[in-house]
Amino acid sequence: MFAYERTAQYHETDQMGVIHHSNYVKWMEEARVAFLDSVGLSYRSMEEDGVLSPVIGISLEYKRPVRFGDVVSITVTPANYTGVRYELRYTMTNRSTGEVCTTAVSRHCFLKNGRIVSLKKVLPETDRILMQDAMKD
Amino acid sequence: MFAYERTAQYHETDQMGVIHHSNYVKWMEEARVAFLDSVGLSYRSMEEDGVLSPVIGISLEYKRPVRFGDVVSITVTPANYTGVRYELRYTMTNRSTGEVCTTAVSRHCFLKNGRIVSLKKVLPETDRILMQDAMKD
Amino acid sequence: MFAYERTAQYHETDQMGVIHHSNYVKWMEEARVAFLDSVGLSYRSMEEDGVLSPVIGISLEYKRPVRFGDVVSITVTPANYTGVRYELRYTMTNRSTGEVCTTAVSRHCFLKNGRIVSLKKVLPETDRILMQDAMKD
Amino acid sequence: MFAYERTAQYHETDQMGVIHHSNYVKWMEEARVAFLDSVGLSYRSMEEDGVLSPVIGISLEYKRPVRFGDVVSITVTPANYTGVRYELRYTMTNRSTGEVCTTAVSRHCFLKNGRIVSLKKVLPETDRILMQDAMKD
Repeated sequence: MFAYERTAQYHETDQMGVIHHSNYVKWMEEARVAFLDSVGLSYRSMEEDGVLSPVIGISLEYKRPVRFGDVVSITVTPANYTGVRYELRYTMTNRSTGEVCTTAVSRHCFLKNGRIVSLKKVLPETDRILMQDAMKD
Repeated sequence: MFAYERTAQYHETDQMGVIHHSNYVKWMEEARVAFLDSVGLSYRSMEEDGVLSPVIGISLEYKRPVRFGDVVSITVTPANYTGVRYELRYTMTNRSTGEVCTTAVSRHCFLKNGRIVSLKKVLPETDRILMQDAMKD
Repeated sequence: MFAYERTAQYHETDQMGVIHHSNYVKWMEEARVAFLDSVGLSYRSMEEDGVLSPVIGISLEYKRPVRFGDVVSITVTPANYTGVRYELRYTMTNRSTGEVCTTAVSRHCFLKNGRIVSLKKVLPETDRILMQDAMKD
Repeated sequence: MFAYERTAQYHETDQMGVIHHSNYVKWMEEARVAFLDSVGLSYRSMEEDGVLSPVIGISLEYKRPVRFGDVVSITVTPANYTGVRYELRYTMTNRSTGEVCTTAVSRHCFLKNGRIVSLKKVLPETDRILMQDAMKD
Protein backbone atom coordinates (compact mmCIF):
# COMPACT_ATOMS: atom_id res chain seq x y z
CA MET A 1 0.00 0.00 0.00
CA PHE A 2 1.24 3.46 -0.87
CA ALA A 3 2.45 5.64 2.02
CA TYR A 4 3.77 9.21 2.11
CA GLU A 5 5.80 10.44 5.07
CA ARG A 6 5.85 13.93 6.47
CA THR A 7 7.47 15.62 9.47
CA ALA A 8 5.17 18.07 11.28
CA GLN A 9 6.74 21.54 11.09
CA TYR A 10 6.98 24.33 13.65
CA HIS A 11 5.18 26.77 11.33
CA GLU A 12 2.26 24.33 11.26
CA THR A 13 1.64 24.51 15.03
CA ASP A 14 -0.95 26.77 16.64
CA GLN A 15 -1.30 28.19 20.13
CA MET A 16 -2.93 24.98 21.42
CA GLY A 17 0.59 23.54 20.99
CA VAL A 18 -0.44 21.12 18.26
CA ILE A 19 -0.55 21.08 14.45
CA HIS A 20 -3.35 23.37 13.24
CA HIS A 21 -6.17 21.35 11.67
CA SER A 22 -6.04 23.20 8.33
CA ASN A 23 -2.60 21.76 7.57
CA TYR A 24 -3.90 18.20 7.21
CA VAL A 25 -5.70 19.33 4.04
CA LYS A 26 -2.31 20.30 2.61
CA TRP A 27 -0.81 16.98 3.74
CA MET A 28 -3.62 15.16 1.93
CA GLU A 29 -2.67 17.01 -1.24
CA GLU A 30 1.03 16.21 -0.83
CA ALA A 31 0.18 12.53 -0.29
CA ARG A 32 -2.22 12.57 -3.27
CA VAL A 33 0.39 14.06 -5.62
CA ALA A 34 2.94 11.47 -4.44
CA PHE A 35 0.40 8.65 -4.79
CA LEU A 36 -0.63 9.66 -8.33
CA ASP A 37 3.05 9.91 -9.19
CA SER A 38 3.59 6.39 -7.86
CA VAL A 39 0.94 5.04 -10.26
CA GLY A 40 2.54 6.85 -13.20
CA LEU A 41 0.28 9.89 -13.20
CA SER A 42 2.33 13.07 -12.88
CA TYR A 43 0.16 15.94 -11.72
CA ARG A 44 2.56 18.34 -13.37
CA SER A 45 2.36 16.63 -16.80
CA MET A 46 -1.41 16.31 -16.49
CA GLU A 47 -1.69 20.08 -16.00
CA GLU A 48 0.75 20.64 -18.86
CA ASP A 49 -1.67 18.58 -21.01
CA GLY A 50 -4.38 21.05 -20.00
CA VAL A 51 -6.17 18.65 -17.66
CA LEU A 52 -6.92 19.83 -14.13
CA SER A 53 -8.16 17.64 -11.32
CA PRO A 54 -9.77 19.94 -8.76
CA VAL A 55 -10.98 18.88 -5.33
CA ILE A 56 -14.80 18.79 -5.19
CA GLY A 57 -15.13 17.69 -1.60
CA ILE A 58 -13.13 16.71 1.48
CA SER A 59 -13.95 15.25 4.84
CA LEU A 60 -11.60 14.80 7.82
CA GLU A 61 -11.91 13.17 11.24
CA TYR A 62 -9.35 14.42 13.76
CA LYS A 63 -8.74 11.63 16.26
CA ARG A 64 -5.54 12.62 18.04
CA PRO A 65 -3.35 15.73 17.89
CA VAL A 66 0.07 15.75 16.21
CA ARG A 67 2.97 17.73 17.65
CA PHE A 68 5.92 19.59 16.14
CA GLY A 69 8.60 17.11 15.11
CA ASP A 70 6.28 14.09 14.93
CA VAL A 71 6.58 12.02 11.75
CA VAL A 72 3.25 11.18 10.15
CA SER A 73 2.79 8.36 7.65
CA ILE A 74 -0.13 8.82 5.26
CA THR A 75 -1.56 5.89 3.29
CA VAL A 76 -3.64 6.69 0.21
CA THR A 77 -6.13 4.30 -1.36
CA PRO A 78 -8.31 5.02 -4.40
CA ALA A 79 -12.03 4.24 -4.39
CA ASN A 80 -15.09 4.71 -6.53
CA TYR A 81 -13.35 5.65 -9.76
CA THR A 82 -16.02 6.17 -12.43
CA GLY A 83 -13.94 7.63 -15.24
CA VAL A 84 -15.33 11.04 -14.39
CA ARG A 85 -14.90 11.21 -10.63
CA TYR A 86 -12.61 9.52 -8.16
CA GLU A 87 -12.24 9.37 -4.43
CA LEU A 88 -9.12 8.91 -2.32
CA ARG A 89 -9.03 7.71 1.28
CA TYR A 90 -6.26 8.69 3.67
CA THR A 91 -5.14 7.22 6.97
CA MET A 92 -2.58 9.29 8.85
CA THR A 93 -0.56 7.46 11.50
CA ASN A 94 1.72 9.24 13.94
CA ARG A 95 4.90 7.20 13.79
CA SER A 96 6.06 8.55 17.16
CA THR A 97 3.08 6.91 18.89
CA GLY A 98 1.89 4.31 16.36
CA GLU A 99 -1.63 5.71 16.62
CA VAL A 100 -3.95 6.82 13.82
CA CYS A 101 -4.26 10.59 14.20
CA THR A 102 -6.54 11.51 11.29
CA THR A 103 -8.63 9.79 8.63
CA ALA A 104 -9.86 11.62 5.56
CA VAL A 105 -11.49 11.39 2.15
CA SER A 106 -11.16 13.62 -0.92
CA ARG A 107 -13.28 13.60 -4.08
CA HIS A 108 -12.11 14.85 -7.46
CA CYS A 109 -13.15 15.29 -11.07
CA PHE A 110 -11.24 16.16 -14.25
CA LEU A 111 -11.54 19.46 -16.10
CA LYS A 112 -10.37 20.43 -19.58
CA ASN A 113 -10.99 23.98 -20.82
CA GLY A 114 -13.13 24.54 -17.74
CA ARG A 115 -15.48 21.61 -18.44
CA ILE A 116 -15.84 18.30 -16.64
CA VAL A 117 -14.47 15.56 -18.87
CA SER A 118 -14.19 11.80 -18.91
CA LEU A 119 -10.58 10.87 -18.27
CA LYS A 120 -11.01 7.98 -20.75
CA LYS A 121 -11.32 10.53 -23.55
CA VAL A 122 -8.64 13.03 -22.61
CA LEU A 123 -6.00 10.83 -20.97
CA PRO A 124 -6.85 7.17 -21.79
CA GLU A 125 -3.57 5.85 -20.39
CA THR A 126 -4.15 7.52 -17.04
CA ASP A 127 -7.74 6.26 -17.03
CA ARG A 128 -6.51 2.70 -17.44
CA ILE A 129 -4.08 3.10 -14.52
CA LEU A 130 -6.66 4.54 -12.13
CA MET A 131 -9.23 1.92 -13.11
CA GLN A 132 -6.81 -0.93 -12.37
CA ASP A 133 -5.77 0.64 -9.13
CA ALA A 134 -9.32 1.23 -7.90
CA MET A 135 -10.19 -2.36 -8.73
CA LYS A 136 -7.28 -3.77 -6.76
CA ASP A 137 -8.68 -2.14 -3.68
CA MET B 1 -28.46 35.17 10.57
CA PHE B 2 -24.81 35.73 11.35
CA ALA B 3 -22.51 36.43 8.39
CA TYR B 4 -18.74 37.01 8.22
CA GLU B 5 -17.20 38.69 5.19
CA ARG B 6 -13.79 38.01 3.72
CA THR B 7 -11.87 39.20 0.67
CA ALA B 8 -9.97 36.41 -1.13
CA GLN B 9 -6.26 37.24 -1.02
CA TYR B 10 -3.53 36.87 -3.63
CA HIS B 11 -1.46 34.65 -1.32
CA GLU B 12 -4.44 32.28 -1.13
CA THR B 13 -4.46 31.58 -4.89
CA ASP B 14 -2.81 28.57 -6.51
CA GLN B 15 -1.57 27.87 -10.01
CA MET B 16 -5.06 26.91 -11.20
CA GLY B 17 -5.73 30.65 -10.82
CA VAL B 18 -8.28 30.18 -8.03
CA ILE B 19 -8.26 30.14 -4.22
CA HIS B 20 -6.56 26.96 -3.00
CA HIS B 21 -9.07 24.64 -1.35
CA SER B 22 -7.15 24.44 1.97
CA ASN B 23 -7.86 28.12 2.68
CA TYR B 24 -11.60 27.58 3.14
CA VAL B 25 -10.79 25.64 6.32
CA LYS B 26 -9.12 28.80 7.66
CA TRP B 27 -12.08 30.91 6.54
CA MET B 28 -14.41 28.56 8.47
CA GLU B 29 -12.33 29.17 11.58
CA GLU B 30 -12.37 32.95 11.11
CA ALA B 31 -16.16 32.86 10.64
CA ARG B 32 -16.53 30.56 13.66
CA VAL B 33 -14.51 32.84 15.95
CA ALA B 34 -16.56 35.85 14.76
CA PHE B 35 -19.83 33.94 15.19
CA LEU B 36 -18.96 32.79 18.74
CA ASP B 37 -17.96 36.37 19.52
CA SER B 38 -21.34 37.58 18.23
CA VAL B 39 -23.13 35.30 20.73
CA GLY B 40 -20.97 36.56 23.60
CA LEU B 41 -18.46 33.73 23.59
CA SER B 42 -14.94 35.08 23.17
CA TYR B 43 -12.59 32.36 21.99
CA ARG B 44 -9.73 34.24 23.57
CA SER B 45 -11.36 34.43 27.04
CA MET B 46 -12.46 30.81 26.79
CA GLU B 47 -8.83 29.76 26.24
CA GLU B 48 -7.72 32.09 29.05
CA ASP B 49 -10.18 30.17 31.28
CA GLY B 50 -8.33 26.99 30.29
CA VAL B 51 -11.09 25.67 28.05
CA LEU B 52 -10.15 24.64 24.51
CA SER B 53 -12.61 23.83 21.76
CA PRO B 54 -10.76 21.75 19.18
CA VAL B 55 -12.10 20.72 15.79
CA ILE B 56 -12.98 17.01 15.73
CA GLY B 57 -14.19 16.83 12.16
CA ILE B 58 -14.81 18.94 9.08
CA SER B 59 -16.49 18.38 5.75
CA LEU B 60 -16.51 20.71 2.74
CA GLU B 61 -18.24 20.67 -0.64
CA TYR B 62 -16.56 22.89 -3.23
CA LYS B 63 -19.21 24.03 -5.71
CA ARG B 64 -17.63 26.92 -7.57
CA PRO B 65 -14.13 28.43 -7.50
CA VAL B 66 -13.39 31.81 -5.90
CA ARG B 67 -10.88 34.21 -7.44
CA PHE B 68 -8.44 36.75 -6.02
CA GLY B 69 -10.30 39.90 -5.02
CA ASP B 70 -13.73 38.24 -4.72
CA VAL B 71 -15.61 39.01 -1.52
CA VAL B 72 -17.09 35.95 0.15
CA SER B 73 -19.89 36.12 2.71
CA ILE B 74 -19.98 33.20 5.16
CA THR B 75 -23.09 32.43 7.21
CA VAL B 76 -22.66 30.29 10.32
CA THR B 77 -25.49 28.37 11.98
CA PRO B 78 -25.15 26.14 15.04
CA ALA B 79 -26.67 22.67 15.11
CA ASN B 80 -26.79 19.61 17.32
CA TYR B 81 -25.44 21.18 20.50
CA THR B 82 -25.42 18.53 23.21
CA GLY B 83 -23.51 20.31 25.96
CA VAL B 84 -20.47 18.22 25.06
CA ARG B 85 -20.31 18.55 21.29
CA TYR B 86 -21.55 21.09 18.81
CA GLU B 87 -21.69 21.41 15.08
CA LEU B 88 -21.56 24.51 12.92
CA ARG B 89 -22.78 24.79 9.32
CA TYR B 90 -21.31 27.26 6.88
CA THR B 91 -22.61 28.59 3.57
CA MET B 92 -20.09 30.65 1.61
CA THR B 93 -21.53 32.95 -1.06
CA ASN B 94 -19.37 34.78 -3.57
CA ARG B 95 -20.73 38.32 -3.44
CA SER B 96 -19.23 39.11 -6.87
CA THR B 97 -21.48 36.50 -8.52
CA GLY B 98 -24.21 35.92 -5.91
CA GLU B 99 -23.56 32.17 -6.12
CA VAL B 100 -22.89 29.75 -3.29
CA CYS B 101 -19.26 28.66 -3.72
CA THR B 102 -18.77 26.29 -0.79
CA THR B 103 -20.82 24.63 1.95
CA ALA B 104 -19.21 23.11 5.01
CA VAL B 105 -19.71 21.62 8.46
CA SER B 106 -17.38 21.54 11.49
CA ARG B 107 -17.77 19.53 14.68
CA HIS B 108 -16.23 20.47 18.02
CA CYS B 109 -15.94 19.42 21.64
CA PHE B 110 -14.64 21.17 24.76
CA LEU B 111 -11.43 20.24 26.56
CA LYS B 112 -10.18 21.22 30.00
CA ASN B 113 -6.81 19.91 31.19
CA GLY B 114 -6.76 17.65 28.14
CA ARG B 115 -10.10 15.97 28.95
CA ILE B 116 -13.45 16.27 27.21
CA VAL B 117 -15.80 18.20 29.48
CA SER B 118 -19.42 19.25 29.56
CA LEU B 119 -19.60 22.96 28.86
CA LYS B 120 -22.46 23.18 31.37
CA LYS B 121 -20.00 22.39 34.14
CA VAL B 122 -17.01 24.48 33.13
CA LEU B 123 -18.66 27.49 31.49
CA PRO B 124 -22.39 27.44 32.37
CA GLU B 125 -23.05 30.89 30.92
CA THR B 126 -21.60 29.92 27.55
CA ASP B 127 -23.56 26.68 27.66
CA ARG B 128 -26.80 28.62 28.09
CA ILE B 129 -25.96 30.87 25.11
CA LEU B 130 -25.12 28.00 22.76
CA MET B 131 -28.19 26.04 23.85
CA GLN B 132 -30.50 28.97 23.10
CA ASP B 133 -28.83 29.62 19.82
CA ALA B 134 -28.99 26.01 18.66
CA MET B 135 -32.69 25.89 19.59
CA LYS B 136 -33.51 28.98 17.53
CA ASP B 137 -32.28 27.20 14.47
CA MET C 1 -1.19 58.18 4.83
CA PHE C 2 -2.59 54.89 3.61
CA ALA C 3 -3.33 52.28 6.30
CA TYR C 4 -4.68 48.73 6.03
CA GLU C 5 -6.20 47.01 9.04
CA ARG C 6 -6.07 43.33 9.85
CA THR C 7 -7.20 41.18 12.77
CA ALA C 8 -4.66 38.49 13.76
CA GLN C 9 -6.29 35.09 13.27
CA TYR C 10 -6.14 31.93 15.36
CA HIS C 11 -4.79 29.90 12.42
CA GLU C 12 -1.88 32.36 12.26
CA THR C 13 -0.66 31.59 15.79
CA ASP C 14 2.13 29.12 16.57
CA GLN C 15 3.04 27.18 19.68
CA MET C 16 4.89 30.17 21.20
CA GLY C 17 1.37 31.60 21.59
CA VAL C 18 1.96 34.46 19.14
CA ILE C 19 1.45 35.11 15.42
CA HIS C 20 3.99 33.07 13.43
CA HIS C 21 6.53 35.35 11.76
CA SER C 22 5.83 34.06 8.23
CA ASN C 23 2.33 35.57 8.29
CA TYR C 24 3.60 39.14 8.29
CA VAL C 25 4.83 38.56 4.73
CA LYS C 26 1.24 37.79 3.74
CA TRP C 27 0.00 40.84 5.62
CA MET C 28 2.51 42.98 3.68
CA GLU C 29 1.01 41.64 0.45
CA GLU C 30 -2.55 42.33 1.59
CA ALA C 31 -1.60 45.88 2.57
CA ARG C 32 0.29 46.35 -0.75
CA VAL C 33 -2.69 45.22 -2.85
CA ALA C 34 -4.98 47.55 -0.86
CA PHE C 35 -2.49 50.43 -1.15
CA LEU C 36 -2.08 50.01 -4.93
CA ASP C 37 -5.85 49.87 -5.21
CA SER C 38 -6.11 53.12 -3.26
CA VAL C 39 -3.86 54.86 -5.82
CA GLY C 40 -5.97 53.54 -8.70
CA LEU C 41 -3.79 50.55 -9.56
CA SER C 42 -5.79 47.33 -9.42
CA TYR C 43 -3.50 44.35 -9.10
CA ARG C 44 -6.18 42.21 -10.70
CA SER C 45 -6.52 44.44 -13.80
CA MET C 46 -2.74 44.75 -14.05
CA GLU C 47 -2.43 40.95 -14.24
CA GLU C 48 -5.32 40.83 -16.71
CA ASP C 49 -3.26 43.25 -18.86
CA GLY C 50 -0.46 40.68 -18.74
CA VAL C 51 1.75 42.69 -16.36
CA LEU C 52 3.04 40.96 -13.25
CA SER C 53 4.75 42.70 -10.35
CA PRO C 54 6.73 40.05 -8.49
CA VAL C 55 8.51 40.57 -5.20
CA ILE C 56 12.28 40.68 -5.66
CA GLY C 57 13.23 41.20 -2.04
CA ILE C 58 11.79 41.66 1.44
CA SER C 59 13.17 42.58 4.80
CA LEU C 60 11.35 42.50 8.15
CA GLU C 61 12.24 43.58 11.69
CA TYR C 62 10.12 41.92 14.37
CA LYS C 63 9.94 44.25 17.35
CA ARG C 64 7.06 42.96 19.45
CA PRO C 65 4.85 39.87 19.17
CA VAL C 66 1.20 40.07 18.09
CA ARG C 67 -1.45 37.84 19.65
CA PHE C 68 -4.61 36.22 18.37
CA GLY C 69 -7.41 38.79 18.21
CA ASP C 70 -5.11 41.82 18.13
CA VAL C 71 -5.91 44.37 15.42
CA VAL C 72 -2.87 45.50 13.45
CA SER C 73 -2.79 48.69 11.40
CA ILE C 74 -0.29 48.66 8.51
CA THR C 75 0.82 51.88 6.83
CA VAL C 76 2.35 51.61 3.35
CA THR C 77 4.59 54.26 1.81
CA PRO C 78 6.22 54.08 -1.62
CA ALA C 79 9.88 54.89 -2.09
CA ASN C 80 12.57 54.78 -4.75
CA TYR C 81 10.30 54.36 -7.77
CA THR C 82 12.49 54.30 -10.88
CA GLY C 83 9.95 53.31 -13.52
CA VAL C 84 11.43 49.81 -13.46
CA ARG C 85 11.60 49.02 -9.76
CA TYR C 86 9.76 50.28 -6.71
CA GLU C 87 10.02 49.82 -3.00
CA LEU C 88 7.30 49.91 -0.37
CA ARG C 89 7.83 50.51 3.35
CA TYR C 90 5.48 49.13 5.98
CA THR C 91 4.94 50.04 9.60
CA MET C 92 2.70 47.66 11.52
CA THR C 93 1.17 49.00 14.72
CA ASN C 94 -0.71 46.83 17.20
CA ARG C 95 -3.85 48.84 17.90
CA SER C 96 -4.45 46.94 21.15
CA THR C 97 -1.20 48.32 22.61
CA GLY C 98 -0.42 51.31 20.36
CA GLU C 99 3.09 49.93 19.82
CA VAL C 100 4.89 49.31 16.54
CA CYS C 101 5.22 45.54 16.25
CA THR C 102 6.97 45.14 12.89
CA THR C 103 8.62 47.28 10.23
CA ALA C 104 9.29 45.99 6.75
CA VAL C 105 10.34 46.78 3.20
CA SER C 106 9.49 45.06 -0.08
CA ARG C 107 11.05 45.60 -3.51
CA HIS C 108 9.32 44.89 -6.80
CA CYS C 109 9.75 45.04 -10.56
CA PHE C 110 7.34 44.67 -13.47
CA LEU C 111 7.28 41.71 -15.86
CA LYS C 112 5.55 41.30 -19.22
CA ASN C 113 5.92 38.02 -21.10
CA GLY C 114 8.52 36.99 -18.54
CA ARG C 115 10.75 40.03 -19.13
CA ILE C 116 11.45 43.02 -16.91
CA VAL C 117 9.77 46.05 -18.42
CA SER C 118 9.55 49.76 -17.79
CA LEU C 119 6.10 50.53 -16.42
CA LYS C 120 6.16 53.79 -18.42
CA LYS C 121 5.98 51.76 -21.61
CA VAL C 122 3.46 49.08 -20.67
CA LEU C 123 1.15 50.97 -18.29
CA PRO C 124 1.90 54.71 -18.63
CA GLU C 125 -1.10 55.74 -16.51
CA THR C 126 0.03 53.56 -13.62
CA ASP C 127 3.58 54.85 -14.01
CA ARG C 128 2.33 58.42 -13.62
CA ILE C 129 0.41 57.51 -10.44
CA LEU C 130 3.35 55.74 -8.77
CA MET C 131 5.74 58.53 -9.73
CA GLN C 132 3.52 61.19 -8.15
CA ASP C 133 3.01 59.10 -5.08
CA ALA C 134 6.68 58.37 -4.56
CA MET C 135 7.47 62.06 -4.92
CA LYS C 136 4.95 63.07 -2.28
CA ASP C 137 6.83 61.01 0.21
CA MET D 1 28.15 22.16 4.79
CA PHE D 2 24.67 21.48 6.09
CA ALA D 3 21.90 21.22 3.46
CA TYR D 4 18.15 20.63 3.83
CA GLU D 5 16.11 19.44 0.87
CA ARG D 6 12.51 20.29 0.13
CA THR D 7 10.11 19.58 -2.73
CA ALA D 8 7.98 22.58 -3.73
CA GLN D 9 4.32 21.69 -3.16
CA TYR D 10 1.21 22.45 -5.19
CA HIS D 11 -0.43 24.23 -2.24
CA GLU D 12 2.57 26.58 -2.18
CA THR D 13 1.99 27.89 -5.73
CA ASP D 14 0.11 31.09 -6.53
CA GLN D 15 -1.67 32.32 -9.64
CA MET D 16 1.60 33.50 -11.21
CA GLY D 17 2.29 29.76 -11.56
CA VAL D 18 5.25 29.80 -9.17
CA ILE D 19 5.86 29.24 -5.46
CA HIS D 20 4.42 32.16 -3.48
CA HIS D 21 7.22 34.22 -1.92
CA SER D 22 5.88 33.86 1.65
CA ASN D 23 6.64 30.13 1.64
CA TYR D 24 10.40 30.63 1.56
CA VAL D 25 10.16 32.03 5.10
CA LYS D 26 8.68 28.68 6.18
CA TRP D 27 11.40 26.82 4.27
CA MET D 28 14.03 28.86 6.12
CA GLU D 29 12.48 27.73 9.41
CA GLU D 30 12.41 24.08 8.33
CA ALA D 31 16.07 24.30 7.27
CA ARG D 32 16.97 26.10 10.52
CA VAL D 33 15.31 23.45 12.71
CA ALA D 34 17.09 20.71 10.73
CA PHE D 35 20.42 22.56 10.93
CA LEU D 36 20.17 23.13 14.70
CA ASP D 37 19.26 19.46 15.07
CA SER D 38 22.36 18.51 13.08
CA VAL D 39 24.56 20.39 15.56
CA GLY D 40 22.90 18.66 18.51
CA LEU D 41 20.44 21.42 19.37
CA SER D 42 16.90 20.11 19.31
CA TYR D 43 14.42 22.95 18.97
CA ARG D 44 11.83 20.78 20.68
CA SER D 45 14.00 20.08 23.75
CA MET D 46 15.09 23.70 23.91
CA GLU D 47 11.43 24.79 24.16
CA GLU D 48 10.78 22.02 26.70
CA ASP D 49 13.61 23.59 28.76
CA GLY D 50 11.66 26.85 28.62
CA VAL D 51 14.03 28.56 26.18
CA LEU D 52 12.54 30.12 23.05
CA SER D 53 14.52 31.38 20.10
CA PRO D 54 12.29 33.84 18.24
CA VAL D 55 13.08 35.41 14.90
CA ILE D 56 13.97 39.09 15.29
CA GLY D 57 14.58 39.85 11.63
CA ILE D 58 14.66 38.26 8.19
CA SER D 59 15.77 39.38 4.77
CA LEU D 60 15.26 37.54 1.47
CA GLU D 61 16.41 38.14 -2.11
CA TYR D 62 14.29 36.35 -4.69
CA LYS D 63 16.48 35.67 -7.72
CA ARG D 64 14.59 33.07 -9.75
CA PRO D 65 11.13 31.54 -9.36
CA VAL D 66 10.61 27.94 -8.20
CA ARG D 67 7.86 25.77 -9.68
CA PHE D 68 5.65 23.02 -8.30
CA GLY D 69 7.62 19.77 -8.12
CA ASP D 70 11.06 21.41 -8.15
CA VAL D 71 13.44 20.15 -5.47
CA VAL D 72 15.21 22.93 -3.58
CA SER D 73 18.39 22.39 -1.58
CA ILE D 74 18.93 24.88 1.26
CA THR D 75 22.34 25.36 2.86
CA VAL D 76 22.47 26.98 6.31
CA THR D 77 25.55 28.65 7.76
CA PRO D 78 25.77 30.36 11.15
CA ALA D 79 27.31 33.79 11.54
CA ASN D 80 27.82 36.47 14.14
CA TYR D 81 27.01 34.40 17.22
CA THR D 82 27.46 36.60 20.27
CA GLY D 83 26.01 34.38 22.99
CA VAL D 84 22.88 36.53 22.95
CA ARG D 85 22.08 36.79 19.26
CA TYR D 86 22.87 34.70 16.22
CA GLU D 87 22.39 34.97 12.52
CA LEU D 88 21.88 32.25 9.94
CA ARG D 89 22.49 32.56 6.20
CA TYR D 90 20.60 30.49 3.66
CA THR D 91 21.31 29.72 0.02
CA MET D 92 18.49 27.97 -1.81
CA THR D 93 19.42 26.14 -5.00
CA ASN D 94 16.86 24.71 -7.39
CA ARG D 95 18.18 21.21 -8.06
CA SER D 96 16.13 20.95 -11.26
CA THR D 97 18.10 23.82 -12.82
CA GLY D 98 21.23 24.04 -10.65
CA GLU D 99 20.61 27.74 -10.14
CA VAL D 100 20.44 29.69 -6.89
CA CYS D 101 16.80 30.79 -6.55
CA THR D 102 16.85 32.64 -3.22
CA THR D 103 19.34 33.87 -0.64
CA ALA D 104 18.27 34.85 2.85
CA VAL D 105 19.34 35.78 6.36
CA SER D 106 17.56 35.36 9.69
CA ARG D 107 18.49 36.83 13.06
CA HIS D 108 17.51 35.35 16.42
CA CYS D 109 17.83 35.80 20.15
CA PHE D 110 17.04 33.57 23.13
CA LEU D 111 14.19 34.15 25.56
CA LYS D 112 13.50 32.61 28.97
CA ASN D 113 10.39 33.68 30.88
CA GLY D 114 9.85 36.40 28.29
CA ARG D 115 13.32 37.97 28.79
CA ILE D 116 16.32 38.00 26.50
CA VAL D 117 18.99 35.76 27.99
CA SER D 118 22.55 34.77 27.31
CA LEU D 119 22.58 31.21 26.01
CA LYS D 120 25.81 30.64 27.96
CA LYS D 121 23.85 30.93 31.19
CA VAL D 122 20.71 29.00 30.36
CA LEU D 123 22.04 26.31 28.00
CA PRO D 124 25.87 26.29 28.24
CA GLU D 125 26.22 23.11 26.19
CA THR D 126 24.25 24.60 23.29
CA ASP D 127 26.25 27.81 23.58
CA ARG D 128 29.49 25.86 23.19
CA ILE D 129 28.15 24.11 20.05
CA LEU D 130 26.97 27.31 18.35
CA MET D 131 30.21 29.10 19.21
CA GLN D 132 32.31 26.37 17.65
CA ASP D 133 30.12 26.23 14.63
CA ALA D 134 30.14 29.98 14.04
CA MET D 135 33.93 29.98 14.34
CA LYS D 136 34.34 27.29 11.71
CA ASP D 137 32.62 29.53 9.24
